[in-house]
Amino acid sequence: MYEILDDINSPADLKSLTEEQLEQLCNELRNYIVSSCSHNPGHLGSSLGAVEIAVALHRVFDAPKDKIVWDVGHQAYAHKIITGRREQFVHNREKGGLSGFPKMSESEYDAFGTGHASTSISAALGMAVADRMNGIDASHIAVIGDGAMSGGLAFEGLNNAGSQKCNLLVILNDNRISIDVPNDAIHRHLMRITSGVRYNRIKRGIWRRLGDSKFRDFLQALTHSTKKFLLHGSSTVSMFDSLGFRYFGPVDGNDLHQVISMLNRLKKIDGPKILHLITVKGMGYKPAEDNPEIWHAPGKFDPETGETVHSKEGPDKYQTVFGETVTEMAAADSRIVGITPAMLRGSSLDIMKARFPERVFDVGIAEGHAVTFSAGLAAAGMLPVCSIYSTFMQRAYDNVIHDVALQNLKVIFSLDRAGLVGEDGATHQGVFDLAAFRSVPGIAIASPLNEGDLRNLLHSAAGSDYPATIIRYPRGCGEGAPWRGLPFSDIPFGKAVKLSEGSRMAILSIGPIGNRCAEVVAQAKARFSAEIMHYDMRFLKPIDTEALADACAKADTILTAEDGTTVGGLHSAVCEYVADRGLDKRVIAVGVPDRFIEQASVKEQYTECKMAFENILEKVSEIFGK
Amino acid sequence: MYEILDDINSPADLKSLTEEQLEQLCNELRNYIVSSCSHNPGHLGSSLGAVEIAVALHRVFDAPKDKIVWDVGHQAYAHKIITGRREQFVHNREKGGLSGFPKMSESEYDAFGTGHASTSISAALGMAVADRMNGIDASHIAVIGDGAMSGGLAFEGLNNAGSQKCNLLVILNDNRISIDVPNDAIHRHLMRITSGVRYNRIKRGIWRRLGDSKFRDFLQALTHSTKKFLLHGSSTVSMFDSLGFRYFGPVDGNDLHQVISMLNRLKKIDGPKILHLITVKGMGYKPAEDNPEIWHAPGKFDPETGETVHSKEGPDKYQTVFGETVTEMAAADSRIVGITPAMLRGSSLDIMKARFPERVFDVGIAEGHAVTFSAGLAAAGMLPVCSIYSTFMQRAYDNVIHDVALQNLKVIFSLDRAGLVGEDGATHQGVFDLAAFRSVPGIAIASPLNEGDLRNLLHSAAGSDYPATIIRYPRGCGEGAPWRGLPFSDIPFGKAVKLSEGSRMAILSIGPIGNRCAEVVAQAKARFSAEIMHYDMRFLKPIDTEALADACAKADTILTAEDGTTVGGLHSAVCEYVADRGLDKRVIAVGVPDRFIEQASVKEQYTECKMAFENILEKVSEIFGK
Repeated sequence: MYEILDDINSPADLKSLTEEQLEQLCNELRNYIVSSCSHNPGHLGSSLGAVEIAVALHRVFDAPKDKIVWDVGHQAYAHKIITGRREQFVHNREKGGLSGFPKMSESEYDAFGTGHASTSISAALGMAVADRMNGIDASHIAVIGDGAMSGGLAFEGLNNAGSQKCNLLVILNDNRISIDVPNDAIHRHLMRITSGVRYNRIKRGIWRRLGDSKFRDFLQALTHSTKKFLLHGSSTVSMFDSLGFRYFGPVDGNDLHQVISMLNRLKKIDGPKILHLITVKGMGYKPAEDNPEIWHAPGKFDPETGETVHSKEGPDKYQTVFGETVTEMAAADSRIVGITPAMLRGSSLDIMKARFPERVFDVGIAEGHAVTFSAGLAAAGMLPVCSIYSTFMQRAYDNVIHDVALQNLKVIFSLDRAGLVGEDGATHQGVFDLAAFRSVPGIAIASPLNEGDLRNLLHSAAGSDYPATIIRYPRGCGEGAPWRGLPFSDIPFGKAVKLSEGSRMAILSIGPIGNRCAEVVAQAKARFSAEIMHYDMRFLKPIDTEALADACAKADTILTAEDGTTVGGLHSAVCEYVADRGLDKRVIAVGVPDRFIEQASVKEQYTECKMAFENILEKVSEIFGK
Repeated sequence: MYEILDDINSPADLKSLTEEQLEQLCNELRNYIVSSCSHNPGHLGSSLGAVEIAVALHRVFDAPKDKIVWDVGHQAYAHKIITGRREQFVHNREKGGLSGFPKMSESEYDAFGTGHASTSISAALGMAVADRMNGIDASHIAVIGDGAMSGGLAFEGLNNAGSQKCNLLVILNDNRISIDVPNDAIHRHLMRITSGVRYNRIKRGIWRRLGDSKFRDFLQALTHSTKKFLLHGSSTVSMFDSLGFRYFGPVDGNDLHQVISMLNRLKKIDGPKILHLITVKGMGYKPAEDNPEIWHAPGKFDPETGETVHSKEGPDKYQTVFGETVTEMAAADSRIVGITPAMLRGSSLDIMKARFPERVFDVGIAEGHAVTFSAGLAAAGMLPVCSIYSTFMQRAYDNVIHDVALQNLKVIFSLDRAGLVGEDGATHQGVFDLAAFRSVPGIAIASPLNEGDLRNLLHSAAGSDYPATIIRYPRGCGEGAPWRGLPFSDIPFGKAVKLSEGSRMAILSIGPIGNRCAEVVAQAKARFSAEIMHYDMRFLKPIDTEALADACAKADTILTAEDGTTVGGLHSAVCEYVADRGLDKRVIAVGVPDRFIEQASVKEQYTECKMAFENILEKVSEIFGK
């Protein structure tokens, strides 16, 4: 099918190709990625933009001896395909297939596993220092996007690397659009650089390829600002210079010849250096070039027409409930502000931003800052709603403890993508939050059963006496429960909701998994007349000890159900209650086991973790001897 | 006693003083701080260096309307004294006295509570944005040291602030020596700046005051490098410029007149700006100027002679055991490298650095980078020993999960200052680590009973099959157990040690608190012939289920003892074991309760948390009806 690509089984096969053949390879890689992602969804846009980078790196350097670390890593599809995983790529992000991110156990060409942003410089520096100490002559390359460059970890890495005598090459893959368009100082700095003289030399090429796409307006603005910043030309590169890096660029990162030629030159230059490449997200696939935000991860689509395949109508997403509810609350309470670290659309805070543009802050990829900045806002009387994906909140663990909880400041955290997340796999599972934050004094932790609960939890958190409240909910569709336009109702903090009465066995659940538990309760009643007590705990902290007392008074067996690790979360809280009092109860855990859960669909992961309806029903049936 | 200071009860009292009187006030503040700290130890050096900054800020600005955030905050003694806490200052860091750090609940002049580094810019920005939205015309000032500036959070704050239209003033208090002397790019950048032309104008003043102290050599080096960097004069300030800040300085931060005059000018300039002040750590107290590292927190001393009062001889510190053992291991295993985020001396990695200077990396205040850099070293075949204070490890929670555990990389983490830490108080308690990391799959978590155990745990972690091992131990003296020069012995991972046999009651402890438990067991036997089973669990993870089974087989009551929160750590692990199996046991928790623990001596904190020998004995006595 693919003239060149079909014969590429390792980077060694690139070495003998002519540059024309390499150009063709890039085209074939694009076609293959588009074709594959059209029916097996993935991170399309950024991978299309980085095809030339991947091909040039493997042409010029000798992996796996030379080590390439792809920051975040979802732009590394071409890298995966040309490093012996061409055929497996059709199973990208599937159970048993390839990870959507570089992964050391998957290939020796994946020098470091990634997923979260901004780790590449620190990791590549570690390898560079190690190889230097061991007398190994190798190159170490971190490929990092402009979005990830705003993360504090990237700065810490640059700062430390700048003082080490290592041949570290940082490739700044600047496509100007991470997931959402950021407006921070780094990006303005990069814009100034690319507005300088050198940029004009590469601009024309990009312009020609882009034609009359929307990017044209963007580039027009750049050209305009060029005049303004030409005078500062010599100082624009200085942020990297200040950190001890030699700066090279900007260079058109989709011009294979230029990239190869730059890499060949940089290979011979010692010390820490940064190569600034301008790439076009979605490059080579027009629909993706035109709408880079939508085509970051478009889902299934028709590769010919570029029409995305809309999944059949389902209930509203929790994200929509969050976005609309916060906007409604903000309309009534001028203290409310929204904060997101680069997930404006993902979190649906864009809904609030559209209505209250001055009251929503996208701080870029900088979770720690998002939380401490929220704390500062709260200290001066605002009521911040800070929305962070559960897995990325791990970055701000200390900020929640030290800058919010300890300071007794009122911040509402909406922890999005909590629980098992599906195809993004192990790096992105939002399964540690309940356990991690349960031990933090003074905060409240809740999870809604459904859309209506999420709406009312947000409302009630704003009015509660608790300083910080964490509200966690999963990605995607809700349960179809009513919520829109309903009047707010106050949810008492720390109170559970009894969904069914019973004896012998009690189910204590938190979050939407409670709906599966309720179905199990109904089934058990229908099948073998079991009367099972069921509490939707709603709050992990403060936990409703009256509900626990009720359950322990009437049931011998308690089943806890949560979409998170069973080590430290609801399961542990219930076990503590039982064992502290010396109650003779057995507590059965339903939740994520103590291991990392790899990519698969959420449904498959639920089954793998024995958290699905069938698994819970089976556990219940065993208790009742059925 | 103090002519001016005695009448300063709030910043308003500064407004009417002449500059001469303010100069005298600075001297009196120094004398008062030295006198007070001589018998009630505190962070002397940095607070002496920041006296003029505090006085100038309160002279020029109007707190509490204008908000001053002191990064880290241990340099803020003068600020505390002149904001109505002069008399309370003699009880600095004592139980019921003042916190050693700014604290919102302590004073309206403490705009934000601090303790951990690098939070000030984010917090002050939040306040600035809030005040702007609320139409409040106020200034917002973050005072941050050069050490804290290397933290990624500070960069995230700068990056976000640079794109906001706020009157944020960042005061860079550059004393060149944070706790240990760092060697990172930011510091070299600052050195270049201060080597420029402007610096020569202020240099003479500092030189004169310093006389022939050791700083003279340092400044000599600077002067030498001036020639080299003069050519780059115009680009040296550019790192802050790149981030959207207007840079002012450098200015002699111990020259009150200059600082006041700069602040008055900057007050009228809109937008984000940075004022670079050069200060001398220990300023005005010669012993502290001469040895700034030792006088960072010198303990008790004779203010006249500058002789520090050595506490009476005790057992070796855990830090010494760690430092010497790692050095010994490094001598035998060339893969071993040491990593510390700015705690070279505090962690005792300076011992290894002295012998293997190329194999110890002080990466500056950058915990996240320290961990991911360690992961990179491990990925390339080294065996990193990464030493971080428990409370600061909260900053690297995600890095441990995502970059080490998930990657299956072998890194040994020595978590120093674990458990209750005493006078540093709530911000610095190392009480969350056991709970936070227990839910991370695949890692091992251990705590030694004594010095010998620490030595052998380090040795055994190097040889174990576990990828990452966390070894946590407290600050300060051990138990007097033998360790130095003893041959290494292999500790089996996940195995507990039975210290005594018994029935009816079992004590399961982890860490040095086990020694108190052993004393309780002995006392209980002597007093009322109780035979109590006691296991030193050694490992929280993997937990020794055979030991748990043994305890549950023989005892009805189990007491867990740990120097950490009872929510999520050993206590929870034991409760899970008991409740999962439906065992009819009562589990009693000894550990840190679910609230923040304020400053006091460690002994007082142990009593407050009912973790002292007497408290455990009391609990045991109750069980035995005595």
